[in-house]
Amino acid sequence: MKKYKVGIIGAGRIGRVHGASITYNLPNAEVVAVSDVRLEGVREWATSLGIETVTEDYQDILNNPDIDVVLVCSSTDTHAEISIAAAKAGKEIFCEKPIDYDLDRIKEVLRVVEETGVKFQVGFNRRFDHNFARINQVTKDGQIGEAHIIKITSRDPEPPPVAYVKVSGGIFLDMAIHDFDMARFQAGSEVDEVYAVGSCLIDPEIGEAGDVDTAITTLKFKNGVLAVIDNSRKAVYGYDQRVEVFGSKGSIEARNDTATNTIMRTSESVTQDKPLYFFLERYMASFTEEMRQFFEAVSNDTPVPVGGIDGLNSVVIGLAAKKSVAEGRPVKISEIL
Amino acid sequence: MKKYKVGIIGAGRIGRVHGASITYNLPNAEVVAVSDVRLEGVREWATSLGIETVTEDYQDILNNPDIDVVLVCSSTDTHAEISIAAAKAGKEIFCEKPIDYDLDRIKEVLRVVEETGVKFQVGFNRRFDHNFARINQVTKDGQIGEAHIIKITSRDPEPPPVAYVKVSGGIFLDMAIHDFDMARFQAGSEVDEVYAVGSCLIDPEIGEAGDVDTAITTLKFKNGVLAVIDNSRKAVYGYDQRVEVFGSKGSIEARNDTATNTIMRTSESVTQDKPLYFFLERYMASFTEEMRQFFEAVSNDTPVPVGGIDGLNSVVIGLAAKKSVAEGRPVKISEIL
Amino acid sequence: MKKYKVGIIGAGRIGRVHGASITYNLPNAEVVAVSDVRLEGVREWATSLGIETVTEDYQDILNNPDIDVVLVCSSTDTHAEISIAAAKAGKEIFCEKPIDYDLDRIKEVLRVVEETGVKFQVGFNRRFDHNFARINQVTKDGQIGEAHIIKITSRDPEPPPVAYVKVSGGIFLDMAIHDFDMARFQAGSEVDEVYAVGSCLIDPEIGEAGDVDTAITTLKFKNGVLAVIDNSRKAVYGYDQRVEVFGSKGSIEARNDTATNTIMRTSESVTQDKPLYFFLERYMASFTEEMRQFFEAVSNDTPVPVGGIDGLNSVVIGLAAKKSVAEGRPVKISEIL
Amino acid sequence: MKKYKVGIIGAGRIGRVHGASITYNLPNAEVVAVSDVRLEGVREWATSLGIETVTEDYQDILNNPDIDVVLVCSSTDTHAEISIAAAKAGKEIFCEKPIDYDLDRIKEVLRVVEETGVKFQVGFNRRFDHNFARINQVTKDGQIGEAHIIKITSRDPEPPPVAYVKVSGGIFLDMAIHDFDMARFQAGSEVDEVYAVGSCLIDPEIGEAGDVDTAITTLKFKNGVLAVIDNSRKAVYGYDQRVEVFGSKGSIEARNDTATNTIMRTSESVTQDKPLYFFLERYMASFTEEMRQFFEAVSNDTPVPVGGIDGLNSVVIGLAAKKSVAEGRPVKISEIL
Repeated sequence: MKKYKVGIIGAGRIGRVHGASITYNLPNAEVVAVSDVRLEGVREWATSLGIETVTEDYQDILNNPDIDVVLVCSSTDTHAEISIAAAKAGKEIFCEKPIDYDLDRIKEVLRVVEETGVKFQVGFNRRFDHNFARINQVTKDGQIGEAHIIKITSRDPEPPPVAYVKVSGGIFLDMAIHDFDMARFQAGSEVDEVYAVGSCLIDPEIGEAGDVDTAITTLKFKNGVLAVIDNSRKAVYGYDQRVEVFGSKGSIEARNDTATNTIMRTSESVTQDKPLYFFLERYMASFTEEMRQFFEAVSNDTPVPVGGIDGLNSVVIGLAAKKSVAEGRPVKISEIL
Repeated sequence: MKKYKVGIIGAGRIGRVHGASITYNLPNAEVVAVSDVRLEGVREWATSLGIETVTEDYQDILNNPDIDVVLVCSSTDTHAEISIAAAKAGKEIFCEKPIDYDLDRIKEVLRVVEETGVKFQVGFNRRFDHNFARINQVTKDGQIGEAHIIKITSRDPEPPPVAYVKVSGGIFLDMAIHDFDMARFQAGSEVDEVYAVGSCLIDPEIGEAGDVDTAITTLKFKNGVLAVIDNSRKAVYGYDQRVEVFGSKGSIEARNDTATNTIMRTSESVTQDKPLYFFLERYMASFTEEMRQFFEAVSNDTPVPVGGIDGLNSVVIGLAAKKSVAEGRPVKISEIL
Repeated sequence: MKKYKVGIIGAGRIGRVHGASITYNLPNAEVVAVSDVRLEGVREWATSLGIETVTEDYQDILNNPDIDVVLVCSSTDTHAEISIAAAKAGKEIFCEKPIDYDLDRIKEVLRVVEETGVKFQVGFNRRFDHNFARINQVTKDGQIGEAHIIKITSRDPEPPPVAYVKVSGGIFLDMAIHDFDMARFQAGSEVDEVYAVGSCLIDPEIGEAGDVDTAITTLKFKNGVLAVIDNSRKAVYGYDQRVEVFGSKGSIEARNDTATNTIMRTSESVTQDKPLYFFLERYMASFTEEMRQFFEAVSNDTPVPVGGIDGLNSVVIGLAAKKSVAEGRPVKISEIL
Repeated sequence: MKKYKVGIIGAGRIGRVHGASITYNLPNAEVVAVSDVRLEGVREWATSLGIETVTEDYQDILNNPDIDVVLVCSSTDTHAEISIAAAKAGKEIFCEKPIDYDLDRIKEVLRVVEETGVKFQVGFNRRFDHNFARINQVTKDGQIGEAHIIKITSRDPEPPPVAYVKVSGGIFLDMAIHDFDMARFQAGSEVDEVYAVGSCLIDPEIGEAGDVDTAITTLKFKNGVLAVIDNSRKAVYGYDQRVEVFGSKGSIEARNDTATNTIMRTSESVTQDKPLYFFLERYMASFTEEMRQFFEAVSNDTPVPVGGIDGLNSVVIGLAAKKSVAEGRPVKISEIL
């Protein structure tokens, strides 16, 4: 069994999650180098995982001929540039979402990826979540017939700092983009039209920053499927992540995961656990599974489960949603792409 | 305690439900007369409940000075005419929904009701459902803070005959009208704008009849609350009736009612009961409760819990939804009313 | 359709429940007389239901040739005497549980019932509960194979007054007797041996009165089925009534009923409703159903669903459980009967 | 941070589980050697984890002065001998359950452990399960008041081979021993008396081997708490592992874990996932957590969370249960110990 040598570019939260997944759970891959523009704390972390090379310059990773695979986990504005450089260096690429917010840059990445023939997987980890993967399997198997309605509840436990909101691209590109990908994943079709409404109900500063904190987005798919997503930046009870697919022969619905399956009964109430707090708790297993499937695709030279087109199309939907709110009307995908 | 004498106009399914509720559950009311344009089977039913007078002409009921209260349970196209006549005859009125599909006629009813000063309650029975009333109470009490998002799942177990679909006013006026009232009930505000999308995914004949069978409607309320309703004419697993209100301090959600609370585990699966089959099973208790509260309002001379304005506004939203689908754009309530 | 004329002997809580069930829900029966040793409040109640005759002397009911059916709802110590007199008067009998605490008196009742050929149903209403009847149906249908283990959770929301405890026959005859009948109902077999342990953990006065307030009873059935019942006099969260049957091909379990199916999520907790408070809330529908099936048996001259032998055997198990606690050893049914 | 060097004695299923937990999840411990009487496949496994030394003779591990900690994962009949030798060699010990089936040998182990002052933890992993640990915490915190009743459901998905049953010590020592420890864990008291009933309902060959396959055990604790455990060797729907503690101020109950939280609704049924299949699926996280807490105790020189006395007492209860079935009477712990 070939053991792939991996370089991680960007050792922030998500880069470290992937580093740990590979080290502890993937016998056929090994992280040998990590780069970050700020090395504070990175060396200690790298040492704890037995990663030998630590550098400030990601070119050191691309130039290392021993390295087969690169994970692009740096800040969003560098994803496109690094991905293009990595593809040209012949590395297999796993790139965090979003590829970019600029459609032309995304298309440029996809073009180079195609030309160079490297693998290029985009980090939509939720597709690998146990609950949502089950829904997808059941739907694909035809157990609930043809899909008619897809419902996604996606609410964060607390809003990010307003400073972040300002540079985030807004709720649709920063947060709902995962849900747009989920809707496409479950619908098995492409979106035709987007209508979104938003309100600023949680924090007026978010509104002053030009964003909304509460939104409902309706998607019309080309195959007639209707999808609706409700987003909130603040669910006080924790990360609310539910998906339902309703079809001609039934429905399948995923409820939230919890830390335990206990039920407590007192004179006051009957209580269960709250949902797991946020994405690191909720989706940890999915990060490992997306890595596993990525290396499986690399190893078997089969298509990656989430490709560049998925990265592109989710951004397109996000831009359409943003335009829809701004102009107060449904927006065709063809207006954007 | 005064025992109100009641006349029921229209002895179809819903008229009989109300007749039984009053007879068996309301000590302060008594059904003394019933009218129907077709008396087949009506006399037997009336006898079984001890109702003395049976007539083909509802005027007999309005002309009877002993009768205090009239229930208008006839076909929709007669609601307005009968309600106006009953109000002029000084009867307290309970009128099934919808009052009419024509806004001018509804307004005429409301004008006469106001002039005559009679009680006039509209039959939005779901407000009296144990689950949805609890949600309303919790929301009003501020236990989940300010409402942000309202989600309503409303799916029938099977579509009505196409012949009915053709005269029904369509999915928005016939079926979703209950959900529009529910959204208003839970939001505590009035709708400002409506956007609806629909597909014909269940039966092409419904499409040929000019209707859709699957729809998602987004409502923007004046207070910023966003609501979304998903409707389907056919949920093979039964009547799917769920409501969730999400707010600044939490959420409350009603799941479906079932015949039993049993769980069966076999080598194949772990199964629970399906939802109760349709509205007679699901909402039976709510019909009794709406009667109880109606007679309470009559008895105490207090406002009825669901007034003429509720009857009017739900139709307005339905018309806006219909227009939204037809024109492919959000429609302001001010365009309709 | 013959309309049976019914006399109720004993107009306490349960007598009134049956009176209302018959009046409001059973078209083929009519309560025409009621007797009680204390008439305070009885006349008003009788009038509200349209019951014409009210008397202090139950003989007036037995002597009335128009009365077909008698409900024995008086205090336990009078059940046997009245049942015998009613049987001799040729009345069909519904007798509340327990028939008596004395086995010889119970046997005497059964003997007279057999001789006179009247119907005699005992008030084990829980067999008619929607959840437990479903379990029984599933079990009988063989959907979970052969039964192996039966588990019954039966906990009251609060203990009765100590004065009542003293005369009640103790937790096994007063409270667990329902559970013994439930175990027999679900097992489809007779008990061979009983082992019970008890503690006084809730109120020391109950212990001083010679009783326990917390108990676990193990039943060995002749067919090898094992059953276990846990009883508590005080579940602060409400009436806890659960039954599970585990068999060779699966299991079926009934969870508690609740007032609503709502779930509330806040920053503190995720809460559901508590179980319904006590037997009047929890078992109301079962009281109606037991009456319906009783009158069905009377009307069709078919065997009653819960017979005298069921009344006898549950008391026998109760006496065995009491003896088991007293002597600290398993007790064979053959030692009692 | 000291990195403890660990030797694993016995590389069967459970030894490998612990080896993987330590390697992948415990930064302060490292497996450096493994021994097994049959080395087939062991070397490959050891290599995959980077374990350097593989030997047939456990003495090689005890004689290695670099090794601080020994995990005794060999067959039950060797636990006592190896534990004693390991203690005399000054190793910290984690010993799989049961220590032995012979009380004198267990006591000898405990004596040597005490004399040598080494750590000695017994492998009751279920105490570290997320659900059951939560129950314990809630109970200890007094959130449900004083414990009154403990209920444990413990059913395997399928019986072991009859050949194994014959040497297993029987259902009480082989299977229920975990439940006896769980009852002690949750009760916070010691057992005073045991009563067990058993039937052979699944496989007559188990009966011919002198064992039962279905059992109910009642435990009376010294503090008055009552516990009941139901065991089956075959739950066709999977591993059924539930615990409930009922107390003066409420109850807490753990339901089964499942692979996903999805609900599927079709015209046939509403289905959830079955319980996780068996202990490797169900308790995997608990094995890691027990290792973590063991090394924490070693590292901080604090008491281990599950000591030798826990290993002893669970066997004592098992022997009492066996005797109870054999003699058809409750058995005092004082008769055994």
